Amino acid sequence: MNISITKTTTPKAKPTMDNLPFGKYFSDHMFVMDYAEGKGWYDPRIVPYGPLELEPSAMVFHYAQEIFEGLKAYKSKDGHVRLFRPYKNFERMNVSAERLAIPALDVDFCVDALKQLVELDRDWIPEQEGASLYIRPFIIATDEYLGVRPSDTYKFLIICSPSGLYYPEGLDPVKIYVEDKYVRTVRGATGFTKTGGNYASSIKAQVIAHERGYSQVLWLDGVEQKYVEEVGSMNIFFKIDGEVVTPMLNGSILSGITRMSTIELLKKWGVPVSERRISIQEIFDAYQAGKLEECFGTGTAAIISPVGELRWEDHVMTINDNQIGEITQRVFDTITGIQTGTMPDEMNWVVTVD
Amino acid sequence: MNISITKTTTPKAKPTMDNLPFGKYFSDHMFVMDYAEGKGWYDPRIVPYGPLELEPSAMVFHYAQEIFEGLKAYKSKDGHVRLFRPYKNFERMNVSAERLAIPALDVDFCVDALKQLVELDRDWIPEQEGASLYIRPFIIATDEYLGVRPSDTYKFLIICSPSGLYYPEGLDPVKIYVEDKYVRTVRGATGFTKTGGNYASSIKAQVIAHERGYSQVLWLDGVEQKYVEEVGSMNIFFKIDGEVVTPMLNGSILSGITRMSTIELLKKWGVPVSERRISIQEIFDAYQAGKLEECFGTGTAAIISPVGELRWEDHVMTINDNQIGEITQRVFDTITGIQTGTMPDEMNWVVTVD
Repeated sequence: MNISITKTTTPKAKPTMDNLPFGKYFSDHMFVMDYAEGKGWYDPRIVPYGPLELEPSAMVFHYAQEIFEGLKAYKSKDGHVRLFRPYKNFERMNVSAERLAIPALDVDFCVDALKQLVELDRDWIPEQEGASLYIRPFIIATDEYLGVRPSDTYKFLIICSPSGLYYPEGLDPVKIYVEDKYVRTVRGATGFTKTGGNYASSIKAQVIAHERGYSQVLWLDGVEQKYVEEVGSMNIFFKIDGEVVTPMLNGSILSGITRMSTIELLKKWGVPVSERRISIQEIFDAYQAGKLEECFGTGTAAIISPVGELRWEDHVMTINDNQIGEITQRVFDTITGIQTGTMPDEMNWVVTVD
Repeated sequence: MNISITKTTTPKAKPTMDNLPFGKYFSDHMFVMDYAEGKGWYDPRIVPYGPLELEPSAMVFHYAQEIFEGLKAYKSKDGHVRLFRPYKNFERMNVSAERLAIPALDVDFCVDALKQLVELDRDWIPEQEGASLYIRPFIIATDEYLGVRPSDTYKFLIICSPSGLYYPEGLDPVKIYVEDKYVRTVRGATGFTKTGGNYASSIKAQVIAHERGYSQVLWLDGVEQKYVEEVGSMNIFFKIDGEVVTPMLNGSILSGITRMSTIELLKKWGVPVSERRISIQEIFDAYQAGKLEECFGTGTAAIISPVGELRWEDHVMTINDNQIGEITQRVFDTITGIQTGTMPDEMNWVVTVD
């Protein structure tokens, strides 16, 4: 399919590109493609960024048949534009699509469309160290119909948001609240996908955690509320007695691309790492035994987020004296180095746009 | 707050009002009201039905912070317009709102707005016996922002869809598939609310059930996958050995208004009825013992839907010889009689518009 390009005739004034907030400003263009049953995906186009016009009966407003992805483009010092493992995002988007009864995308085509979009809006990529163009592909159901069934029509879009450092004041350890009342999801449901409902369900617990002074919640499994699953928008890793452990992919947690990259790096470095079931009691026992050495979250937005405090019921666990751990720092430096081009890309993770 | 009214200058051609499909056509007007943090709900207005213009970054497209309701308006033989327990819908909408971190509505104001809208579009209420104007109130998050947090802005809308009989060929018993792989939700999550994510999560199992020849799935609980919860868009009732039983409200099933009305009617009639935990094994045991006498679903769309067959793993349970049971028929006749005005409204459930 050929992608038609309509350039804006009224480029927007760019915001100050230093210390940009996350996900608030959007670049001049967006990619759009439609789907109709019997016709497939059609009319791929890059057009000026602008509003969608949808009937109030559009299914996305009622039954949340919607999925999304998130990835970043960086401009390296030599001016090249770099994407981090973009094929993985569109492969995962197809996993989400399958669970949500949404038609699949052609992964190669999507990466190509993304490259064209980012190339066109390359002036929107902030050059401040660690800043990036956050890229948000998403699909919404657009049938004008109130029955509960898969939509026959969809829109796929990619929008781009220049975003500053996730932690403008540096990589400070965050405080995480272990959620023991609310549940995010359960095996058999949609926890392994990036669908809106998982996030809608998570908002209330997050609001309460914020009020208590915690930046995010750590979810426990939906069946027994005993096993660690993931943090609000990140996967979670622990270093216990020299071994790095992270919850296994059990159908209710997201298969994060930063998670995957972290595991691959640790294996390459010869650091013991395992994916398995981890109870919160085990974490607390390790803490009490002085063996909980590091804890960090992984996700596209923050990349690596050191955890300095975990609160579980009445137990407050201060980790590594609230300092960034050695492995945490090394993973952060390596992934951001590869993303921005200051370190060699030995794993072939980066796709350059130009 | 005063509701401004802008009447359409180009009324739509009405579809043939006999045997209308469900949720496909929409009346000439809609109610809209906006919310902004610090300002509250504002600018309530009835305007011509038409598209919404939203930025692609609007939170509803990404994190599904959205809730809805469903109720019906009937025109009785003497021309009066009747709503069935509308206060219950807006009270429940506030329960959904609280869980989804959406600001509450003023229930009395909403019923008043709904009356004005339905009065204006009263010619859109089909007069065929059993047909109605299906009413869909809904709220969507509209912040133009990609962070995961409650939106600071929302839109509340009410749209109306003239809809025919849910079962145009009469009240035929349906076949239901007991879902043992996929899970809809779990206690601690959003199962008791009417939020899009619950429905998005349900679509795939429903597609598979359809392919197997079943009209809907019966969900089991998310923890043990043993206890009966609800059907795709209905609550479920069983008559076992003379007693009517329905799953108790446990936090993961919807508190249906037709469910509530059914229980109230049964109590009034002196029919034994209990809300409790019911395992699918208990249902199967009762079936094998010849004591599973009736089964029916309750919901706004279908009102009462007799179940003629339940399939659980390899067990096929044919209920009441695939005929409508006596209690099922009586509940259906009474609720629809009250809704349409052919039976006295002894419970004061009906609110007339004019």
